[in-house]
Amino acid sequence: MTTARRDTYTPETLLTVAVRIFNERGYDGTSMEHLSRAAGISKSSIYHHVAGKEELLRRAVSRAIDALFAILDESGAERGRAVERVEYVTRRTVEVLMAELPYVTLLLRVRGNTKTERWAMERRREFDQRVADLLKAAAADGDLRADVDTRLATRLLFGMVNSLVEWYRPQPGGGHDGEQVADAVVRMAFDGLRAG
Amino acid sequence: MTTARRDTYTPETLLTVAVRIFNERGYDGTSMEHLSRAAGISKSSIYHHVAGKEELLRRAVSRAIDALFAILDESGAERGRAVERVEYVTRRTVEVLMAELPYVTLLLRVRGNTKTERWAMERRREFDQRVADLLKAAAADGDLRADVDTRLATRLLFGMVNSLVEWYRPQPGGGHDGEQVADAVVRMAFDGLRAG
Repeated sequence: MTTARRDTYTPETLLTVAVRIFNERGYDGTSMEHLSRAAGISKSSIYHHVAGKEELLRRAVSRAIDALFAILDESGAERGRAVERVEYVTRRTVEVLMAELPYVTLLLRVRGNTKTERWAMERRREFDQRVADLLKAAAADGDLRADVDTRLATRLLFGMVNSLVEWYRPQPGGGHDGEQVADAVVRMAFDGLRAG
Repeated sequence: MTTARRDTYTPETLLTVAVRIFNERGYDGTSMEHLSRAAGISKSSIYHHVAGKEELLRRAVSRAIDALFAILDESGAERGRAVERVEYVTRRTVEVLMAELPYVTLLLRVRGNTKTERWAMERRREFDQRVADLLKAAAADGDLRADVDTRLATRLLFGMVNSLVEWYRPQPGGGHDGEQVADAVVRMAFDGLRAG
């Protein structure tokens, strides 16, 4: 039984609760009962807002996916040399990850057991592929070192960027501000840690 | 019930099975029953080899931890300028991660619910701290760029290195050989992707 509470949720505010629980328990490990308890409203109230937990997952990962793909339509991603575009996209990806932290965290953790999860993984791969294409174009321009394979560079770049979900926390206690983190990622990935 | 099978395990070979199941189901989600089924021997046969699943976890993460700490005693990690030592340790960490992939994967996934998990996380933090100290020494030598905070550099470096457990697979189908991967990590982290 849930504690009685007037249902003042919108699909949007309910999503905030659902994403937190999905990230804590894993999507597979979350039941409608868990969501009902966390939100403090009955399961039937939740069904009033959404068809079920898969719809909540779809809305949540869509938010992350839409924010990521929107980067590719920004002028910094569309104009200039490929190396500058890929640097721009890297910086903005870090910024989106920090701004939409719980949503991107969930996106990175989906495992492909349901149709929605498989769709999310597919869209994530498409985004990675768009970045890989930019890296390839930058390599073709002679702006990237030739001794690191582009596919491998893409994986390592995303490895570094995506690792932020494991430790970046927006609170002051987190230690690093967002701009400092975005700068560090771009500097390390493109210019390296070694002093010029 | 398990399928009857003669118990030809040693603690070592039983560990191989246990680590695979821990990585598949998560340590928390693995019961002695799961281990018994995967190994094809009875629970009491398992108890003949080890005191329980926590001992299997301890042996498994110890194998990863010992391999990582051993790097720090190698001459490449002890002699020369700090920047060369930290490059050496980075390369060797990638090599150990690839050589001991299931063990390091498990180490990186433990979450701190039991005494053994908390000990493993503590040892992992100690290793990260040793690498952070080397980076700090290299920065003090003027060999690392001053505009990336050392703590942040450590996190990003481990973010990149540790991401390998998500995609690196030793089979030919995996696409990249180990040396190529280790080279790419060191080049990207210290010299950056941009053409000299």
